[in-house]
Order: sequence, then structure tokens, then C-alpha cells
Amino acid sequence: MEQGKLFVLSGPSGAGKGTICKEIVKREGIGLSVSMTTRAPRGVEEHGRSYYFVSEEEFQRTIDEGGFLEYANIYGNSYGTPKKPVMDYLASGRDMILEIEMQGAFQVKTVYPDGILIFVLPPSLEELKNRLIARGTEDEREIQKRLQATLNEIALIHEYDYYVINGDLEEAVDRVRAIIVAEHSKVDKNIGRLTRAYEEEL
Amino acid sequence: MEQGKLFVLSGPSGAGKGTICKEIVKREGIGLSVSMTTRAPRGVEEHGRSYYFVSEEEFQRTIDEGGFLEYANIYGNSYGTPKKPVMDYLASGRDMILEIEMQGAFQVKTVYPDGILIFVLPPSLEELKNRLIARGTEDEREIQKRLQATLNEIALIHEYDYYVINGDLEEAVDRVRAIIVAEHSKVDKNIGRLTRAYEEEL
Repeated sequence: MEQGKLFVLSGPSGAGKGTICKEIVKREGIGLSVSMTTRAPRGVEEHGRSYYFVSEEEFQRTIDEGGFLEYANIYGNSYGTPKKPVMDYLASGRDMILEIEMQGAFQVKTVYPDGILIFVLPPSLEELKNRLIARGTEDEREIQKRLQATLNEIALIHEYDYYVINGDLEEAVDRVRAIIVAEHSKVDKNIGRLTRAYEEEL
Repeated sequence: MEQGKLFVLSGPSGAGKGTICKEIVKREGIGLSVSMTTRAPRGVEEHGRSYYFVSEEEFQRTIDEGGFLEYANIYGNSYGTPKKPVMDYLASGRDMILEIEMQGAFQVKTVYPDGILIFVLPPSLEELKNRLIARGTEDEREIQKRLQATLNEIALIHEYDYYVINGDLEEAVDRVRAIIVAEHSKVDKNIGRLTRAYEEEL
């Protein structure tokens, strides 16, 4: 069976990669990777669905075993993408999508170079600014700092395979879908399987 | 302005690349390249629309000037894709599609390596055989020879960038469209234009 493909959706925060990711999972029936974390479950969060909730020791053991596609510590809690469930899923011939911040995306590409990196961009810094103002959690000075940080992140687009500008959600989702279809239409190392099928007919 | 892209649809005859090409031109508003030929116009064929009808001398002069993306002699008549109208069209920022036989596709890739080669396949040799029988122009022995030739052509798929299996026309057209969209989503040498637009905002 042909190996599934791993698509990594990443980019500056506020660009809307989470929404695109959810839509792709819903419409395309593509698998969504579940992260491992050391933080406590909140509200209705379920183990193995929202996150794998583990102890500090188990998280550290997974790091030591080289068991993460990527991991990071955010505000004192550890988060990571365990490698095995993703690899098992791909081996079953199905695609998987991963939505992570940029440093994580680079780690994935290092550990699994076949991963396809998609950069999600806001349509403009102006639009991103409006979204941040509408959210109302940051003041003017913080927003200005965020925009500068976003610009620095956009400069890293060269590390990615594809980019998608998220102005209109439908259009952005359609573009990610097109990337998935096109990746499955590439003439790559799996093509021998296809040509053999024709050979066997004659 | 960003340069348009050249998509080359090719593959074994009988796979239906002509039908897919027509649909893409109709739906996507992508330009269709016009060939040059030394054969006489037939019926309603118009100069500059169906073909550029030229003399043997003009055709030879175009060859001598390196003016073809590809050319071939078929049953005593010469056919070719003049380079200039294609390059002018791409320079205007619009995409162009070209439907040609396989040797022509390889010539295009040599002359214009940025061209994107898409291989159109019949769903099976069995199905191709049925299509040939339905057409009723070849006898059993000729059909068998054609199938063997098709198999030899399929072995050249490695020279292509993408492949599309034409079982269901709608699905095949959708796949070619996805390839076009994805090619325009690639992070390539043109990406500097995009990142500069964000930089200029701050």
C-alpha cells in the first residue's frame, strides 16, 4: 500500500491556520494528529482525543527515546507531537494533518523530511492588526510588537514548500485541498507501483 | 508582474488528454497554445485560431531561428509550437496549456525547463482497448500493437512532473485544476515579491 502523506500547517499566529485545519479534517476526512502534553486536562478535554495527558517523567522519557516529531515548552508546560501514532497512521495509507507553530514545523521537517510544509499567511499586516484589535486582548504597543514579530516570521517562508494566503476562508481551504490532491499526483518514487499495474495487464 | 506558467498535457493517445485540455481552457480561462503547420486548412479551420498555416519555407526558417518549443513531422506535414506567442503570453502573467504528443513534451521541457509536464493515463489497458474497439478504426492485431506501444510510453512517465488517470472526466479535470492551483502556491523564486509587500506595510 502507498504511504499516506503528512501535511504541516503552520505560520504566524492569527493567520487562521487552526480554522483551515479543522475544515480540511472535516471535509477531506484526513487524520488530525493528537499532541502530548504535561498540562492538566481542562473542562471536557479527553485523553487521546484533545491531547495525550502525561506526566513530566513520561514526556521526558519520550524525548530521550527520540519519540517526538517536535516538542516545545510553552509557559512551563510541555507539548509535543508523538512520532509513532503519526507514522502508524501514514503507514495505513491515510494522510495526516498537523497544525503547529513555526519552530515545531521546522523540527518536523528535520525528523521527517517527507512532511509537506504549508505556510498560512494573513492577507495583510493591516488585516492581522484588525483581527488583533477585534480580539481585544492586547494593547496598541503589544500589537505593534506582534506585527514586527509576524514580519520576522514571514521572512522564514523560504523554509516552506507551499504558501496559502488566508483572506477568504473558502478560498484558503480550497487551496490547501488542491495542494493535497497535487501532492498525490506527483510522479515520485511510488510511481513504479502504478506502471507495474499496467504491465501486468498485458 | 509574476510570470504565467506553462502546463503541458501529454501521454499515450486515446487517454483523453484533448478532452481534459478543452475543459480546463473553458473552465479556468487559461490560454491554449496555437500550433504552426505546413498542411492545408480543412473546412472551417481559421489561421491563428486552429493553426498558423505557413509554407514549408517559413516553417524551416522558424526551425533555423530556434523559434519552436517543439516540432515534428507527421505523415509528411510539419507541426510545431512557436515559442514567441507562448513566451509573450506567459510574460503577460497568464497561464498557458499545451496538449501534445510525448516526444513534443520532452522537447518543450528541454527548451523551457519551467514547463510543467502532466502525464494523462487511461484507467487501464483494458479500458483503452475498449475505447479503441468502440472507435472501430483498427483491427485486433493493430489494437494489440497499440497496447504494447502504450505500455512502452507509460514507462516514460518518470520524465513527467505529475500524472492524472483519466477514468472519470470530472475527476481528471479537477485533478489538473488542483495541480495548477498548487503550482501557484509553491514557495519559489517569486516569493520575494510577496514578502516585500508585507515589509512595505510596516
